[in-house]
Order: sequence, then C-alpha cells, then structure tokens
Amino acid sequence: MESMGTFKGHLLPAVFFFLFSLYYSVLVSLALLRGQRFLKPPLPPKEKRGHRWWNLVPVEAMVKVFMCLTGIIAEFFYPPGVNRLRIVDWEDPRRPFLFTNGWQHVTMYGFFLLSGVVDIVSQSCQARQNMKLERAAEALSFCTLALLMAAHIETKSTLEIRVHILFIVPTLLVGLVLIIEVWVPDQPSLWVLKTWMGLVFSTWLLQICMVLYVPPSGQPWRSENHMDISFLTIFFCWHLGLGAAILATVYGICSLWHHRCSSWTGASGVEYQPCPTGYSEELEKLQAGAQLQDGSV
Amino acid sequence: MESMGTFKGHLLPAVFFFLFSLYYSVLVSLALLRGQRFLKPPLPPKEKRGHRWWNLVPVEAMVKVFMCLTGIIAEFFYPPGVNRLRIVDWEDPRRPFLFTNGWQHVTMYGFFLLSGVVDIVSQSCQARQNMKLERAAEALSFCTLALLMAAHIETKSTLEIRVHILFIVPTLLVGLVLIIEVWVPDQPSLWVLKTWMGLVFSTWLLQICMVLYVPPSGQPWRSENHMDISFLTIFFCWHLGLGAAILATVYGICSLWHHRCSSWTGASGVEYQPCPTGYSEELEKLQAGAQLQDGSV
Amino acid sequence: MESMGTFKGHLLPAVFFFLFSLYYSVLVSLALLRGQRFLKPPLPPKEKRGHRWWNLVPVEAMVKVFMCLTGIIAEFFYPPGVNRLRIVDWEDPRRPFLFTNGWQHVTMYGFFLLSGVVDIVSQSCQARQNMKLERAAEALSFCTLALLMAAHIETKSTLEIRVHILFIVPTLLVGLVLIIEVWVPDQPSLWVLKTWMGLVFSTWLLQICMVLYVPPSGQPWRSENHMDISFLTIFFCWHLGLGAAILATVYGICSLWHHRCSSWTGASGVEYQPCPTGYSEELEKLQAGAQLQDGSV
Amino acid sequence: MESMGTFKGHLLPAVFFFLFSLYYSVLVSLALLRGQRFLKPPLPPKEKRGHRWWNLVPVEAMVKVFMCLTGIIAEFFYPPGVNRLRIVDWEDPRRPFLFTNGWQHVTMYGFFLLSGVVDIVSQSCQARQNMKLERAAEALSFCTLALLMAAHIETKSTLEIRVHILFIVPTLLVGLVLIIEVWVPDQPSLWVLKTWMGLVFSTWLLQICMVLYVPPSGQPWRSENHMDISFLTIFFCWHLGLGAAILATVYGICSLWHHRCSSWTGASGVEYQPCPTGYSEELEKLQAGAQLQDGSV
Repeated sequence: MESMGTFKGHLLPAVFFFLFSLYYSVLVSLALLRGQRFLKPPLPPKEKRGHRWWNLVPVEAMVKVFMCLTGIIAEFFYPPGVNRLRIVDWEDPRRPFLFTNGWQHVTMYGFFLLSGVVDIVSQSCQARQNMKLERAAEALSFCTLALLMAAHIETKSTLEIRVHILFIVPTLLVGLVLIIEVWVPDQPSLWVLKTWMGLVFSTWLLQICMVLYVPPSGQPWRSENHMDISFLTIFFCWHLGLGAAILATVYGICSLWHHRCSSWTGASGVEYQPCPTGYSEELEKLQAGAQLQDGSV
Repeated sequence: MESMGTFKGHLLPAVFFFLFSLYYSVLVSLALLRGQRFLKPPLPPKEKRGHRWWNLVPVEAMVKVFMCLTGIIAEFFYPPGVNRLRIVDWEDPRRPFLFTNGWQHVTMYGFFLLSGVVDIVSQSCQARQNMKLERAAEALSFCTLALLMAAHIETKSTLEIRVHILFIVPTLLVGLVLIIEVWVPDQPSLWVLKTWMGLVFSTWLLQICMVLYVPPSGQPWRSENHMDISFLTIFFCWHLGLGAAILATVYGICSLWHHRCSSWTGASGVEYQPCPTGYSEELEKLQAGAQLQDGSV
Repeated sequence: MESMGTFKGHLLPAVFFFLFSLYYSVLVSLALLRGQRFLKPPLPPKEKRGHRWWNLVPVEAMVKVFMCLTGIIAEFFYPPGVNRLRIVDWEDPRRPFLFTNGWQHVTMYGFFLLSGVVDIVSQSCQARQNMKLERAAEALSFCTLALLMAAHIETKSTLEIRVHILFIVPTLLVGLVLIIEVWVPDQPSLWVLKTWMGLVFSTWLLQICMVLYVPPSGQPWRSENHMDISFLTIFFCWHLGLGAAILATVYGICSLWHHRCSSWTGASGVEYQPCPTGYSEELEKLQAGAQLQDGSV
Repeated sequence: MESMGTFKGHLLPAVFFFLFSLYYSVLVSLALLRGQRFLKPPLPPKEKRGHRWWNLVPVEAMVKVFMCLTGIIAEFFYPPGVNRLRIVDWEDPRRPFLFTNGWQHVTMYGFFLLSGVVDIVSQSCQARQNMKLERAAEALSFCTLALLMAAHIETKSTLEIRVHILFIVPTLLVGLVLIIEVWVPDQPSLWVLKTWMGLVFSTWLLQICMVLYVPPSGQPWRSENHMDISFLTIFFCWHLGLGAAILATVYGICSLWHHRCSSWTGASGVEYQPCPTGYSEELEKLQAGAQLQDGSV
C-alpha cells in the first residue's frame, strides 16, 4: 500500500543515509588529519561573510531538505492512484485511521526535514550560527526515528522485530552522540563514533532490504527458525566491522591525499594555498573567540 | 467515582500545566534574549530585600499551592455525595481499600503542593534562597508522578497503557532535567528542554482527554485495533513538533518585544528604565557572588 | 524455615538500617550546618593520631560488623534445631540445594560485613585512610543486595514481587550515590539523597513486615486484588514523604542545638570549646592537604 | 557440533581470560604502588624508541592475537571431520544456515582479534601510539560479546539463560569502563574495577563449565527447580567476593615485593636501579607532555 513498505521504499533512505555517512567519513577524516577543533568550523558572523557567496548558501542543509521532500512526496504519491493524504476514512461509520505506515514514514522524514530547515535558518538567517540548536534538531530527528521504529514493530513477526531492534541500536547511539554534542562539540572520538554508527545504520538498512524483500539465496528468512534469528545478530556484528572497515579505508585515502597535498603546497611555497590548511588556521581565531563566548554562556 | 477519572479531572491539570509551561516559555525566552546566567535570578539575601515588598511574596509558589489545593479538594469533594476521604472500608469484613485512583491523584497533587511549600519556605522564610532544594522538590514531584503513572496503568487496556507510557516520557525528562539543574542551574539548553517537555506534557494531556473521553470523530479509539495504537505514537511525535512550534512562537514574540523595548529605552535615555535589563545587571553581581560561594561548597 | 522469612527476620535488619539512617541524618545535618567539606572528616595520617585513642577505634565500623554478625548467626542458628549450615543435601540422590533464602540472607549480611571489615582495615591498619575503597565496598554491598533481591522475587506472588521491586528502588539509588561518592565525596546534595533514601529504605522494610506478616487491619493483602497492588505504590510515595519529614525534623533539632551551642560558646569565650566547630576547622587544613593529593592521583 | 558448545570450548576462553586478568591484576597493583598516572605508560614517539628493540614488539597484543587465532581455528577445525566454514547449506532447497553457535563464537573471537591487531598497528606502525583507539577497540569487543551473548540465550533453558545473563553483567561493566577510559584513562579506581570484573568474568566462565557440563555433585542442575536458579545468583555474588579476594592477594604480594625491592635499591645506592621506579619517573615527563597535547585536542 505505502511505498516504504516495499523494497524501493527501504532502498531510497538507505542510499540517502549511506551517501551522507560517506560524506561525513571524509569530513571526519580531514578534520582529524588537520587537527581541527570542530568537525565543521563555525561560520563567521554574518556581516563578515557577505562577499563570499558560497558561504551564505548552506549546501548540506539544502541537500537534506531536498532528500526529505523527495521521500515525503514518494510516500504520498508513489505508486500513484490512491489519495494517501487522507488520515481518517470519514465514510466508514467506524472512522478508521488510514495509511498508518505511510504517516509513520512521513513523520520520520518530517523531522529530518525540520532539522534541515533549522540548519538553513541557523546558517543563513541569523547573525550568529546556533550550532547547539542544529545538533539538538538532528538529535530530535534520530530520537523520533527510534520512537516510531519502536511503535512500528508491533504486530510484526519475530524476524521483523529483531531486524528493527538491531536498527534502533545505532539510531539511538547517533541520537545520544548528537545530544552530547549539543554541549561538547569538540570531541573527535564522538565524531568518529557518530560517523561509524551512521555507516552501520545505512548498511544495515540495505541488509534489511535484502532480508525482508530480496534474499540472495532465493529463500525468505523464516521467523520460526531460530537459526535465522541468531544469524541476524551475527550479521549485525559483521556490519559493525564493515562500517569500521569503510571508515578506515576512507581515512586512509584522505590521509594519502592530505600528505600529498601538504607536501605539494610546501614545495610550491606559501604564495599559493589551494589546500584548506591555511584557511582552517584563519578560522581558528574565530573559533577561539566563539569558544570563549560559548564557555561563558 | 473519582473526579480525575473523568474528562474534567484530566482537563483541570492539563490547563494548569499548559499555563505554567507558557509562563516558563516567556521566562526562558526573556532569559535567553537578555543572556541571563540563571533562569530566575536568585533572590538577594533577606535583609537586603526588606523594603521591596513584592520580592518577599513568592507569587509563583503561591499560585502552585493554590492550584494543587484546588485539585485535591476537587478530588475529595467533587462530585459531592460520597465521603472520599476514607481509605479502608472498615464495615466490610474483607477490609478493602477504597478510591484507589482518587488517592493516587491526591498523592500526585500532594507532591506538587510540597514543592510549592518548599519554594515558599526557601524564598520567604530563610536568610538565603536554597535553589538546590527547590529544584530537588520539583524533581521529586515529577518522579513521583511517573512512578504513580506506572502503577496507574496496570489492569488498563492497551490503549490506556500506551497513552500513559507516552505521557511518562516527557514527565521523566522534566524530572531528569530538574535533577541535573540541582547541580548545574546555568544551562540555557536545559531550560529550553524543560520548557519544551512541559509544553509537550500538557498538550499531550489535553490529547489524552480527547482520546479517552471526547474523540472528535465521535468514535471511541479501540485497543484491539493496532492502527489506532500506531497512530498514538505518530500523534505523540506531532505533539513534539507542536511543542517546539509554540516555544518558537513565544520566543519570536518575546524577541520582538525585547528589541522594541530596548531600542525605546535607548532613545529615552538612562533616566527611565522600565525594562528589567538594568535590573538584571544589578543582580548579576549578587549572582556572581552566590556562584563563587556555590562553587566552593 | 529460615529466620528471615519471618516477621522477626525482616524486623531486625529494618531496625538496624533505621538506626543507621537516623545516625546519618544527624551526621548530615551537622555537616550542613557547619559547612563541612566532607560528611565525615578524613582521619589524619596514622602517626599524628596516636595519642587520641578514640580516633584509633572505628566505632561505626565495629557496630556495623557486630550487627552483621548478629544477623548471620540468627540466620544460621535461630530458631535452633536444624543445621542450616549445610548447602547441599548429600543424602538425597538428587543432591538438592538447601536453605536458599537463608544463604541469600547470609550473603547479603556477608557483603555488609565485608564493608565493615574494609572500614576497619582502612581506618586502623593503614597509614592513610582509603575513603574511595570504603565507599566502593559500601556500594558493592548495596548493589549485591539489589541483585539478590531481584533473584529473590522469582516464584513469588505479585504482591511480594511489587513490594520487593519498590524496595530495590531506594537500594539501587543508595548504591548509585555511593558509587558517585567514590569520585565526588564532597557533594552535600548527595549526602542528603543517600540519607533520605536510607530512611525510605528502612521505613519501607518495616512496612513490608506489616504488609506480609502483621497487617494492622487483621486482613492479609491479596495479590489478586489490583486495589491492594495499587495502594502499595501510593504507600511507597507516602514513605518518600515520610523520609523527607524525618530528615527535616532531625535537621530542625540539630539546627536548634547548633545555634544554641555556638551562641553559648561565643559567650563563654574561646578558652573552652565543647562544640566540634573549632575541631572541624582544625581538620580543614588536613582535608585541604588530602584533597590536593587526591586531585593529583 | 561446534567446539565451544562443549566443556573444552568453554574452558579454553575461561583460562585465557583468567590469565589475562591475573596479568592485569599485577599491572594494576604495581601501577597503584608506584603511583603511576597511566596503567600502561604511553610509548614514547617512534623515532625515540628505535634502539630499544623490546619496546617495538607489542608482546601483549601478540599474545592476544595468538590466543584468538587459536580459538578461531579450534572452532572451525576441532573436532575434525566436518567443514564448519560453510555458512549456508546450498544443497538443501530451504537454504538453511549452518553452525550458528560456531559462527557466533568465531565472531566473538574475531572482535578480540581485531582489538589485538589495532594494538599492534597503534604501537608499532604509527608515529604516536593511539591509546584512545586501542581502548575503543577493546570496548567494542566486549560490547559485541554482550550483544552476541544476548542473542545466544534464545531458545535456551531457564538455567542457561540465567547463567549467561549473569555473565553479561561483568562483560558490560568491563565494556563500560573501557568506553570511559577512551576519555579518562588516568583513573586508578577504573583500573581496579576493570581488573576485578575481568576476574569475576573468568571465574564465572569456569563456573559455567562446571554448572553446564561437569557438576561436582554428579547431578545436573535443573532449570525447573527454582532452588537451583536461586543459588546461581548466590554463587555469582560469591564470585564477586572471590574476585575481590584474588585481587587483594595479588596486591598484597606485589606490595611486599615492591617494598623489599625499593628498600634494597635504597641500600645499594643510586648507581644500580633494576626496579622500574626510576624508569617510570623517566617516562613521567613524556606522559605529562602527551597529556598536555591530549588535553588540547
């Protein structure tokens, strides 16, 4: 009935999340290699970044909003034919609710959309970027996701319950890290944990697609078979390892690029600096100022 | 039988909590706009506030006590006709307990009453205000509320259990924030979380009234229908969004008022200061002193 | 069969804990009134307290050990007639375990005994008192108590399960506070919480005696009656209030005594100081030294 | 079928863990007696330790890797005869999973192997030792162990479930301490807790062998007998005490050795220093430098 209760409906967010997690892996690797204080350097106050137009458009937040809107529209209108915007069937005398799963998925997308909107407002419309609010909105979207997932698994089979509970684990961990980052944004260990959990989260979502809809062995997984249930947890542990391996690979590639880049810069002298190392130093003072202010709040 | 097991019995505390949460939204918004160190500036020592009579009467605590007393009296004597003060039916040979729900609600109100009394004692009867004790008493009332709610849902239908579990979530979060505020009272993020959860808490209580007693569709919600149960969680998530929207609106209005007010003050000169900005600066030194002392305890 | 599965077996530890909690209430009240940094001032190094014989005998630890030994002996030998020291019935071909509850209670007493022994060793046998180890041993005894209680309630009636779960709540809170005190011993709020929970814990244990063995109404509580089960939680909340009331009363009495005592001392001059105020100041330097050392560990 | 579902399969890891825990007991005792800032002093930067070949070979990590490889190989090939490397039986039309328990155990060993590999890479291949990463990898292996254990107990008897739940308690505590040590590596109390839990963990694993496979009374434990189930928890508490006793004994022996050693050194003069006291002081400066750097990250 609803698009997300299908293979494609699970694949779309899985790919979205995987791309985002890969992007964050690169971000975290570079931040670690450059020894940055913040994962994303806080924007300078609005009046000082007027002439740099690319700083005024929050690309990441725009992409987030676009992806969520795609998801919501797909949920409501794909496959076409039924009006899935109705919430209560007024014609039925019992007034039943309609499209439970659909509205659940729309609510999930909606909170990620809210997080994107908060990012845009914070980064473009306010005099100073409010990083605490951005982190809090992200944390809210992951916590809501976990809450809805917990309600989602009712009246499902043991297999689906287990699959989704294992999905809730990285979701809650990402949410927890984001809540901690509201107060402590400068912990590289937390960035790594967040990114790693994001990777596990998205590869596990891909795995769910395969378990529930297209098992590669051609045979459906069976809830009544405790061997299948046990292997789910084993596979989840392997996904933990896989996520760590992806993160290590991305870090390795970034490390190579970073060293080549910095040695090349060193050779060509200080006149030309295409690498952001100099740029990041420039921002350091701003950050230090922002932090002092932050510490006193 | 008991007044709270009715529409009116749920509506009364819902309205009380909503008004309190709105009041706190204004308080938090102004505290954020003025950059205050504390949500409510600590009172100066008693001997220094003798000539300001309005500082000696703790209005907020008085209102709290009045509301709780109203609730308790309503619980015992409304609707009139039965003596609900009895706790054991001594005439029955089995000595059964009577009015379980009534006593539960009275206990809930009782701990909020205790919190109000602690506020009055701390603010009016002691040489120095004891903010830690005030926060602890508030936290106690919310934790007791959660504990009683957990006992309340036994032998209820799935629908009522779910409704009340979702009610316990913001209750426990408010309690947790208040416990943290015993030690760390100067975290604006926690004030916002507390107020937001208070709004969710009260709008959800209003929603409970409608779900359990006056469904707008004219049809009762059914426990055996898992669609209805699923939609409860979806609605709860929407209440999370609604609470955030109310808070953002109040902040916006306060922001407008604050900017108009401060620009007007600036124009009229330093001779006349109707806005509390000057007043708050005056208290800052007291606060700094109180804090130094606090830190050394 | 075992002595603790009786009215007297529950009454004995309840009275022990109540007396200990009352003693701690006095200790905490005086510590708060005198503004002490530690609940119990750390002992000076051993070589400096040689001439004060009453400092060398750890009275509190001795009382603890004595109480636990009384409990263990009562558990094994009261009522006399059966050898309760056996753990497996070797004559029965199935080799069944014997006296489960008895060994459970002995284990509980045993860990409190261990805590007492650790106190004695730390305070009398070592060059420097090891407060961290003392707190950790106390925390261990409360955590073990909670663990055994959780195993204790299996195969019991709903009523006994509920009664014991509510008993585990203050137990775990005391254990948690003690764990925190291993690292942060100088938090007056934690002393108050610990003492209050100790009072709730012991009055609730007295209540359990009455609920399970001698109900004042002459009628046993019934597990199948959900009114009785609901009232258990209500009563527990009242015990929370009762504990707070006892603590407030003790504080009030100590406050009167403290003020009278200090004014009398002030009148009679500095030559004679029966109140510990001077004494505590004397220790403050030692404490400051100990803390500096502690901070650097 | 799989080697670990047997007496020997449980005995092997139990002995491994027990030896490791004993080694850590010695390490912690010496660290406490010498007043070290870190349990294991961080290695100096790679360029400075080139001439000390024994510093370049991370013995502990090598032993870890060797033990895990032994376990994995035993799991796959002992007893010989069956190809346990297959994961799906492709010949059966239902494509069932094979060797669930075996793969579970291999996954457990695999994450400990990963931790060993991370140790080797961090200590030998990088310019600076990355202690945070080492602790995180260890924490991951313990958390994965707990997760797999939680999946392991499904469809088992009450007895096996209880035995494994009590096993998960110290596992999770060790994992938690290791997570905390990623950020706070210099807390002696945490080293003690970790080592103590390691001892409990391994002696409890030995106890499991005896409960499940070779009961000393010659009679199997019975799940349907709640006396047996209750005694499991009592025994676990005694293992807590046993672990503490082993740790205290090791500390006592180390203390004697340390005092004799340091007095002997004192007599023989400063020219000859076989004890690491001087060595540790030497490293202190390095540590101080490393810490300053760490604090600023």
